[in-house]
Amino acid sequence: MANKSNTRCDLMLFGALGDLAQRKLFPALYQLERANLLADGSRILAIARTDVDTDAVRSQLREKLTHYVKPEEMDAELADRFLQRVDYLRLDFSEPEGFGALNDWHQQGSGELIVYMATPPSMYGVIARNLRAASCCTENTRVVVEKPIGHDLESSRVINDELGEVFKESQLFRIDHYLGKETVQNLIALRFANNLFASQWDQNHISHVEITVAESVGIEGRWGYFDKAGQIRDMIQNHLLQLLCLIAMDPPSDLSADSIRDEKVKVLKALRRVTPDMMESHVVRGQYTAGTSNGKPVPGYLEEEGANKGSDTETFVALKAEIENWRWSGVPFYIRTGKRLPEKLSQIIIHFKPAPHYIFDPDQKHLANNKLIIRLQPDEGMSLKILTKDQGLDKGMRLRQGPLELTFSETFENDRIPDAYERLLWEVMKGNQYLFVRRDEVEHAWSWVDQVIQNWRDSGAPPKRYAAGTWGPVASIAMITRDGRSWYEDA
Amino acid sequence: MANKSNTRCDLMLFGALGDLAQRKLFPALYQLERANLLADGSRILAIARTDVDTDAVRSQLREKLTHYVKPEEMDAELADRFLQRVDYLRLDFSEPEGFGALNDWHQQGSGELIVYMATPPSMYGVIARNLRAASCCTENTRVVVEKPIGHDLESSRVINDELGEVFKESQLFRIDHYLGKETVQNLIALRFANNLFASQWDQNHISHVEITVAESVGIEGRWGYFDKAGQIRDMIQNHLLQLLCLIAMDPPSDLSADSIRDEKVKVLKALRRVTPDMMESHVVRGQYTAGTSNGKPVPGYLEEEGANKGSDTETFVALKAEIENWRWSGVPFYIRTGKRLPEKLSQIIIHFKPAPHYIFDPDQKHLANNKLIIRLQPDEGMSLKILTKDQGLDKGMRLRQGPLELTFSETFENDRIPDAYERLLWEVMKGNQYLFVRRDEVEHAWSWVDQVIQNWRDSGAPPKRYAAGTWGPVASIAMITRDGRSWYEDA
Repeated sequence: MANKSNTRCDLMLFGALGDLAQRKLFPALYQLERANLLADGSRILAIARTDVDTDAVRSQLREKLTHYVKPEEMDAELADRFLQRVDYLRLDFSEPEGFGALNDWHQQGSGELIVYMATPPSMYGVIARNLRAASCCTENTRVVVEKPIGHDLESSRVINDELGEVFKESQLFRIDHYLGKETVQNLIALRFANNLFASQWDQNHISHVEITVAESVGIEGRWGYFDKAGQIRDMIQNHLLQLLCLIAMDPPSDLSADSIRDEKVKVLKALRRVTPDMMESHVVRGQYTAGTSNGKPVPGYLEEEGANKGSDTETFVALKAEIENWRWSGVPFYIRTGKRLPEKLSQIIIHFKPAPHYIFDPDQKHLANNKLIIRLQPDEGMSLKILTKDQGLDKGMRLRQGPLELTFSETFENDRIPDAYERLLWEVMKGNQYLFVRRDEVEHAWSWVDQVIQNWRDSGAPPKRYAAGTWGPVASIAMITRDGRSWYEDA
Repeated sequence: MANKSNTRCDLMLFGALGDLAQRKLFPALYQLERANLLADGSRILAIARTDVDTDAVRSQLREKLTHYVKPEEMDAELADRFLQRVDYLRLDFSEPEGFGALNDWHQQGSGELIVYMATPPSMYGVIARNLRAASCCTENTRVVVEKPIGHDLESSRVINDELGEVFKESQLFRIDHYLGKETVQNLIALRFANNLFASQWDQNHISHVEITVAESVGIEGRWGYFDKAGQIRDMIQNHLLQLLCLIAMDPPSDLSADSIRDEKVKVLKALRRVTPDMMESHVVRGQYTAGTSNGKPVPGYLEEEGANKGSDTETFVALKAEIENWRWSGVPFYIRTGKRLPEKLSQIIIHFKPAPHYIFDPDQKHLANNKLIIRLQPDEGMSLKILTKDQGLDKGMRLRQGPLELTFSETFENDRIPDAYERLLWEVMKGNQYLFVRRDEVEHAWSWVDQVIQNWRDSGAPPKRYAAGTWGPVASIAMITRDGRSWYEDA
């Protein structure tokens, strides 16, 4: 039910002067103000180490808002009202003494406490302990933490244990911002509100699934950070596995957070572990070399600023994932993600099986499987590829592929598509966890990904090269071709 | 396979100066010329009683072409080339002596003989006999006959017997011009080339089907003709039952004419006969009274020029048809057709059943069935109503109905949609009978319709009145409402 939050919130934002907060969180909070979703008396405490005062922070925020909010959505008066909610507190997160001030601030208000840790994950534990020591939080306090939760199963357990010492699982809101995207949430509506799809969503009717998350950018000045992670940790462990879960999960009995997350965990548990002998046929690891992007020459990964020339970190991964359960047995999920690919594109393609018998011209038989294309970005929408009769006079019963097309921005053109962080912050305020990642999800995802990384490490094989501006190593094409299929390209 | 006819044809057109020939057949033949589908040496013999000569006929045809062909498709040089193929023969169809001239004409050429009877059906028998007497035709001659084939089962048998005395069934091409419409043929592609639909095309997945063929015009100066027939004979017995067959038939093993027609006949045989006690719940008969059409006042059916004030001929019929077989048991087909309805509209709506379990907001449950809307005219195309997530920030998991939309004229905008008669003439030239109606189809359709007419006659109940410009008698709405449904209206 569409309901407005009448709940007054006190939001403590750790890392308030960092990039994420400035670029995403404050603009999202401004949009909640604009949508009239912030209750009177809701307040925001911006917390960071820097020695500035509230006025300076407010004026810096005003400037950043102007930069990150679309001009037509920017309203000076509204921004003023919003910034009045913001106070700044200088704090060394590791010094317990300072946390008393947090408590003082919260005592002045009367809102539900939300703690948002927009900091490196290494700080989560100490912030949690210091909050507890200062008696800042109750068992109703909600705690939002950003990814990455560790860089493997073991380190994620350490972080989750540290958080778990202070907070219950029901208080923790782990962000995967993909879950905040409208088009990702739409997967739930699409699958479970439409029997046309729901009744065919299995190995009887679907031959295979593709998930592509392509970036056209390269490393964008964060070489050192990225090189420690690589594409599989940065994209697959979280975003792509979340997409896979939403596509593959059994129907939940209801929309409660745990009903949905129970089903997602079942998928992760059913993922076939990638053994060393499967690596050749199921996994492709790539690293881009110099090439072109949008018609301009660009350097290779090892030539980027700050690069360690010897790095064998991957910037591209293609995987053939298999789900060993009743619904999906025999249906591969081909997933790929990479940097410096030809375009920025996130899409999911459901390839339906053809009809059991084919009665049209033999040379068109290859057309005869329906495809549902779900575009997450750009041009959010969906397209169902169906066959219709070609209507030329001399065409007899020739077929042609026509898309049944729905582009959200065109069909519902007066609608603004909210940014992921707007949705996620709003759900935190309402106390809904269904768009946040539960501990066991994180851990099962790491466990599966760790195995692949371990196999890489054991084999010692370097990533395969691909020129910037291409769709990854040829091995990625070969992987799917061996199965008699191809990565979907819009004709 | 798209293949051009290399077959040279000699087309004898009886009734060549009549309305159908002038308005539809010659323009269609001109389009075949324009599409380069008439083989060199193909000829047309225009045959009628009127005492004119070939030159006069050609110049009349040129004028009519200018009138009935779109200006951008009219080419004077092309028209000249086309008209060179046309000769005129004055003939009294009932005088055997004259038919020798037909034979002479045919001997001069070398094309396959096609005889097109664009005459009243009462002439078919005599023309056939006279052709045979003059040895004009062989067993390869193709014979095209227009509807109506009789006005009931008995009279249709007489006509079919007369034709059958001279020609084999495989020589006969009975026109139902709805089968020539691209969007109607598309039903075959849509159903059997798309497993997404094919696998759900039954009582497990479909709750009910609607077929609407609405005309906004009234009687258009043919009161006397129409009044003898009525809407059920004029529209249901042929066009609407053909549409119903194409929607309901089992998949044919191949696209041969008899495979398709065998399946259509199975549907007609499975139609539940309408017994007198079913009339109240299954049939609505209407006749329009004065009202408005396109904002202008228009007279009622009994006030039209030439009207017999006492007529109780129907101008509207709504039926709930039931098909007693494995595929459709329990799935009503609601069909309706009428004159002076609010708009000209032909569409088929497949109402899919909702998913077995519903997990979204209870107040939206009524939305939860997918609908496939097939628009035959205007705006030929299709629309699949699916539910997606409403993307407003405060919408949570609210649903909304979004159409997956395919409008042929927009998606394939360079394509011209051929007129039904172009397609049909072309199929006759290629010798394909699959778009023509077989004798048993005609007879089963009459048999079913005759029963309804007999029930009307026996009950003596007059048709229910409806004001011109409305969707028929309220009884039509009541009929579907009693089943907890409603006629589809685009929101």
